[in-house]
Amino acid sequence: MFEKYDVIVVGAGHAGCEAATAAANLGSKTLLITMNMGTIAQMSCNPAMGGVAKGQIVREIDAMGGKSGIIADKSTIQFRMLNRSKGPAMWSPRTQNDRMRFAEEWRLTLEGTPNLDLWQDMASGIIVKDNKVCGVKTSLGIEIMAEAVVLTNGTFLNGVIHIGEKKMGGGRTGEKSATGITEQLVEMGFEAGRMKTGTPPRVDGRSLDYTKMEEQWGDEERGKFSFTDTPTPTEQRCCWITYTNSEVHETLKLGFEKSPMFTGRIKGLGPRYCPSIEDKINRFAERERHQIFVEPEGWNTVEIYVNGFSTSLPEDIQHKALRLIPGFENAKMFRPGYAIEYDFFPPTQLSLTLETKLIKNLFFAGQINGTTGYEEAAAQGFVAGINAHQKVHDKHELILKRSESYIGVLIDDLVTKGTEEPYRMFTSRAEHRLLLRQDNADERLSPIGYELGLISEDRLNLVKEKIKNAQDIIALAKEIKIDKEIANPILEELGTSSISQSYKLHNLLGRPQLEMKDLRRMSKHFDEALNKYNKETIEQAEIKIKYESYFDKEMEIVEKMKKMEDREINPDFNYHSLNSISKEAREKLMKIKPRTLGQASRISGVSPSDVSVLMVHMNK
Amino acid sequence: MFEKYDVIVVGAGHAGCEAATAAANLGSKTLLITMNMGTIAQMSCNPAMGGVAKGQIVREIDAMGGKSGIIADKSTIQFRMLNRSKGPAMWSPRTQNDRMRFAEEWRLTLEGTPNLDLWQDMASGIIVKDNKVCGVKTSLGIEIMAEAVVLTNGTFLNGVIHIGEKKMGGGRTGEKSATGITEQLVEMGFEAGRMKTGTPPRVDGRSLDYTKMEEQWGDEERGKFSFTDTPTPTEQRCCWITYTNSEVHETLKLGFEKSPMFTGRIKGLGPRYCPSIEDKINRFAERERHQIFVEPEGWNTVEIYVNGFSTSLPEDIQHKALRLIPGFENAKMFRPGYAIEYDFFPPTQLSLTLETKLIKNLFFAGQINGTTGYEEAAAQGFVAGINAHQKVHDKHELILKRSESYIGVLIDDLVTKGTEEPYRMFTSRAEHRLLLRQDNADERLSPIGYELGLISEDRLNLVKEKIKNAQDIIALAKEIKIDKEIANPILEELGTSSISQSYKLHNLLGRPQLEMKDLRRMSKHFDEALNKYNKETIEQAEIKIKYESYFDKEMEIVEKMKKMEDREINPDFNYHSLNSISKEAREKLMKIKPRTLGQASRISGVSPSDVSVLMVHMNK
Repeated sequence: MFEKYDVIVVGAGHAGCEAATAAANLGSKTLLITMNMGTIAQMSCNPAMGGVAKGQIVREIDAMGGKSGIIADKSTIQFRMLNRSKGPAMWSPRTQNDRMRFAEEWRLTLEGTPNLDLWQDMASGIIVKDNKVCGVKTSLGIEIMAEAVVLTNGTFLNGVIHIGEKKMGGGRTGEKSATGITEQLVEMGFEAGRMKTGTPPRVDGRSLDYTKMEEQWGDEERGKFSFTDTPTPTEQRCCWITYTNSEVHETLKLGFEKSPMFTGRIKGLGPRYCPSIEDKINRFAERERHQIFVEPEGWNTVEIYVNGFSTSLPEDIQHKALRLIPGFENAKMFRPGYAIEYDFFPPTQLSLTLETKLIKNLFFAGQINGTTGYEEAAAQGFVAGINAHQKVHDKHELILKRSESYIGVLIDDLVTKGTEEPYRMFTSRAEHRLLLRQDNADERLSPIGYELGLISEDRLNLVKEKIKNAQDIIALAKEIKIDKEIANPILEELGTSSISQSYKLHNLLGRPQLEMKDLRRMSKHFDEALNKYNKETIEQAEIKIKYESYFDKEMEIVEKMKKMEDREINPDFNYHSLNSISKEAREKLMKIKPRTLGQASRISGVSPSDVSVLMVHMNK
Repeated sequence: MFEKYDVIVVGAGHAGCEAATAAANLGSKTLLITMNMGTIAQMSCNPAMGGVAKGQIVREIDAMGGKSGIIADKSTIQFRMLNRSKGPAMWSPRTQNDRMRFAEEWRLTLEGTPNLDLWQDMASGIIVKDNKVCGVKTSLGIEIMAEAVVLTNGTFLNGVIHIGEKKMGGGRTGEKSATGITEQLVEMGFEAGRMKTGTPPRVDGRSLDYTKMEEQWGDEERGKFSFTDTPTPTEQRCCWITYTNSEVHETLKLGFEKSPMFTGRIKGLGPRYCPSIEDKINRFAERERHQIFVEPEGWNTVEIYVNGFSTSLPEDIQHKALRLIPGFENAKMFRPGYAIEYDFFPPTQLSLTLETKLIKNLFFAGQINGTTGYEEAAAQGFVAGINAHQKVHDKHELILKRSESYIGVLIDDLVTKGTEEPYRMFTSRAEHRLLLRQDNADERLSPIGYELGLISEDRLNLVKEKIKNAQDIIALAKEIKIDKEIANPILEELGTSSISQSYKLHNLLGRPQLEMKDLRRMSKHFDEALNKYNKETIEQAEIKIKYESYFDKEMEIVEKMKKMEDREINPDFNYHSLNSISKEAREKLMKIKPRTLGQASRISGVSPSDVSVLMVHMNK
C-alpha cells in the first residue's frame, strides 16, 4: 500500500522533524513515522530553546535552512541573549516557548512540506538486505520500503519510567515505549547501551506565590533565532527564580532509600550537567541551596515547569520537598517528576555523516546517539536527513568542520570519542569557539545551505549583503579620523584615556569602554552613514572591529590545523599493518575509521606520536 | 500528599471535563485525573459537535451552565442548522470543529476553573468502605481520598484495538489502555460487558482531488450553540461529499475474511447507527453506494476525517478501497481506521442521578455506561458532576424529566431500559420532542442551572427577558389587524388564499406559506416594533405562533402523564410482595428500582397491567 520512499524517518521529535523536512525539502520522497500524530514535536522536558552553545546550534541549523529556529521564534514567549556581559563568542540566544504552539507549528510545518508524508504507527524493525537498509517494519505488520532510513527514537526504545520504587514501561509519561528495534540491531552486531534522563514535576501556577520569588523578564530589546523574517514578539511572559534550602534537602534525603538512582535500579548514566536534584544534593553536599528556575509552559496555560528540580524520588517526597521551597508552600503538582531509562547506541558506530558503519544507508540522530538536548537532537536530525538524501541521490556528503560550526564539533565528538553519558554541547567543547558565534552563523553556514539547495539565492544574497555592508562600515571606520577635541570629552566621560592626536574610529573602538554608539556621537558623517544599515549589520561590524585581532589569530590556528583536518585517510586503511603504533591506537583506529588525520588525532588512546607514524606512513 | 477532595473525576474526555467543571463550579473541591495532560478533551472520532438530537443536547448543557457549547463555539470552523426545512422540533445545530483548538479550549477552561485540580496518572481502582466510595487508587500507588468519585473512562478500560487480524492493547490509537478498574468493580458485584466502536482512516488532504466531490458549505447566516456571548465565526471551512461505489465495495469484501467483525474476534456490539463501512455493505447489500462526508480536522491542518468509512479491515484493503472513491484516487493515509473493544457497565446498575446502586457516591458517565457520542457523554458527565456535588453537600438531586430535556430522556432510557449496543440519541427517542427544541433549551433549563448555581442571575434575567419579549411580540401579533387590501397582494404572491375581511397577524402566521418577515411587510407598525428585538427573540415568537396548537396539545399530554411521572415509589418497595404481577416484572422492578410510576412503566417486561396493579397497591 506504500510506494517506495527515498527516505523514511522514524520518530517525530526534534531530530525526526528536522531530518524529515530537510530530506523532503531537498527533494527526497520522505515518510515520517510517528507513534502518535497528536504528540509530534513535544518539548518533553523544559519549554525553552537555545541557551549557552545550544542557541548557537539553533542559529546554525537556521542558517542552513533548518526549521527549529523558525518554529522557536513563532512560539517564543520570552527571549534572552545570555552572556551579553561576556565576549561575543559567549553570547547565546535563548527563548522560553509555548509548548503547545511549538508542537503545533512543527505539525503545520510538516504538513506544509511537499514530498513529505506522515504515517502513524510504531516502527518495530528495519528491513536489511546485503548490509543495506531497504525499509521499515511496523507494529501493524506493514513493510515500507525506502532507500535510506533515519532512526530518531528518542527515549522510546525500551523506555522504562521510574518514580521512587515504581517502574513502568513508557517512552514518556503517559505514552507507550517502542520495542523491537534494539533487539534487532543488537542481533545485527550493533552495540547498545542504556542511558537515563529525568524531568521535574509540573505544577499548577495558580498554587504558587510569585511574590516570594525573583522575577526574571526577557530582554527589553528582543532578538530571535532565525535569520529569516520571523516575527519578533512584542509581548513576553515572566519567569521566576527561587531556591531550595536545607529543609528541602533534608526532606528529599528521606526518599533516598527508595530512589531508583541510589538503589541501583537505574543502570544508565544520566546527564552530568542537568542532574536530578537528589544528585545535586548528593554530589554537592556543601551547597546550602540550589537555584530553581520557574518556567511557564505557554502564553495561557497555568502549567509550570520547575527547572532544577528534576527527580525520580517517590512522588510524596517530591511533593513534600517542593512545598518547602519559597513560593511553593501551597504548590499543587500536575504530575510528578520521573526518570526514564532508554536504549542508545554508542555513536562511535557512526561515520561523520551519521550513517551507521554496519548497515549502509541507515542513519541515527538524537538521543539514540547518546545525546541530550533538543538542539543537539535537531542538529543531528538535520544533518542525518541531508546525508540520507545526498546518499540516495549520489550527491556529496555533508560533513561540517569543527572550525566552522558547533554542529561539526558535536558530530565529530560523538563519532570520534563516543560518549558514556548523555552528551550536551558547551562552548568549551569547541576549540575554535571564537569563530563559532551566534552572530556569524549565517556567514559561516548559509553558503552550505544554499549549495545544498535548502536556502534560496535571495536569502544567500541577503547574507552576502550583510557581510559586504559590515565590511563597508569597517572600511568607513578605518577612514574617518576624529580630532582629539571632539573625541576627548566623550572618552573622558567613558573613563578611558584621552588622545593627543586625531585617531581613526576603528582604532578607538578597540578600547573595551567604547561601543559603536559612542563612535556615532563623535562623527555625524559616520552616524548618518550607519543609518542605512540594520541593527544586525552594525552589530556585526562592531564585533569584527573589536575582536578582529582575536579572530585573526584563531583563523591562523585553523589554517595550521587545516593540513591535518584536510588530510583524508582511505577508509579501508589497515591500521593493523602499523606495527609501530600502540595496540590500543590500532584497535581504536580500526573501530572509528577516522576520515582525516585531524579526526584520528582526537581519538582517545591515539597519541600524537601515533599520529606522526600514521602521517609518515601515508606520505609513503 | 493530596488533601481530601469532595469529588474526583477519572478521565478527561467530554464526560470527565463536564463533570469536573460542573462539580468545581458548584463549589466542590474537585480533582480531575487524566492519563495524559497532553491529550485532554480529544475529539477521538469526527471533528464535529451536535447534529440531529445531539445539537439539542449541547444547547441543553449550555442552558444549564455546562461548557461544551462554549468550547464548540470557540473552535467552530463551520456551522449548519440541520433540518431547517422541517418543523422547528427537528432543527438541529451542528458544527465542524478544529480538533486542536477544541482540546486546547477545554484545557484552558479546566485550568481556569477555581476549585479544580489536575493530576496526570492512571486510576487503577477505587477505594470503598461500607459500600461507599471514599477515594481512588492510581498506578503510582497513590491513594487519593474523596467524598464522591465520577468514572468517565471512555474506551480505555481494557481497550483492545483491532485492525484486520492485528490486535493491540490501547485506549485510543497510540495511547495506553487502562486496567484494574473493571476487575475490581466486577469483584464488587458489578456486571460488566464489552462494546465496540470504530473510526475511519485519516488522510492527507493534500492528496485529495476536491474537484471530484460536492462542496458542502455551512449556513450563510451562522448560528452557534451557546446562549452566552460566544463569538459567531465570520469565516468557515468547506466540507465535501463523495460516494463509495460497487468497486469500493468489492475491494472491501476482499478483506472480510480477515475482518475482526466477521470472524468473531470482536465480541462487543458496535453502534448501530454509526456502522463500519463493511457492516453497511454487509447489511445493505442492495445499496450501490454509501455517502462519504469529508471533514477537515481544523483551520490549518491538512488532516481529513473520512466520515462514513469507519473500518477495521486490514489497512492495505482500507487503502486500496479508499483510492477507488472519487476524489481519493491518490489518497495518502495518515493512519488506518480501527475498531476498539472496551468494557462498559450496563447502566441499569445506576439510579437516575447516575450514581451506582451498589456503591454509594460512585457515579458513572459516558461510554462506560454504554453510550456513544461526544454530546451524550458530555451530558452524562455534566449531570454526574452536579449530582456528585449535590450528594456530597446534602443537596437535592438533579433528575431531569423526559418532558423537559433530551438529557432526561437519555438518562431515563439508560437507567430504565439499559442498552446492549452503543446508545445514541435520536429525536424519535423523545416522546415530547415537540417541546424539546434547540430554540427553547434556555427557556426549559436555565432556571434549573440558576437554581443549582451554575448560571448567574444576569443570565437568567436575559432568558426571562427573551421569553417576555417573545410574548410581547405574540401579543402584538394578536393585536394588529391587517386589512385585506394590504394583505391580499402579499398572500397572492406567496401562493396562499386571499382573505375577505381583516385578519390578525397572529392568525395569518399560522399559514405554512407565511413567515415573520412577510408580516413585517404587511404592517409598518409591527415591523418597527420588532426592530428592537434580536433575531433569536423574533424567531422564538415566530415558532411559538406557528406551532402553538401543537405545543399546547403536547403539553396536555405531558400534564396527563404527570400523575404517573410525579408519583414516586419508595426505593425500598418490595416488588416480590406483588403476587399478581408477572415474575419478570417483579425481577425487573427489583433490579431497576424505578423512582416513579412513570419510570416503572417504561421498563421492558413491565406491562400496563403490572403498572395498574402497582398503582392500586400504592394507593392502599
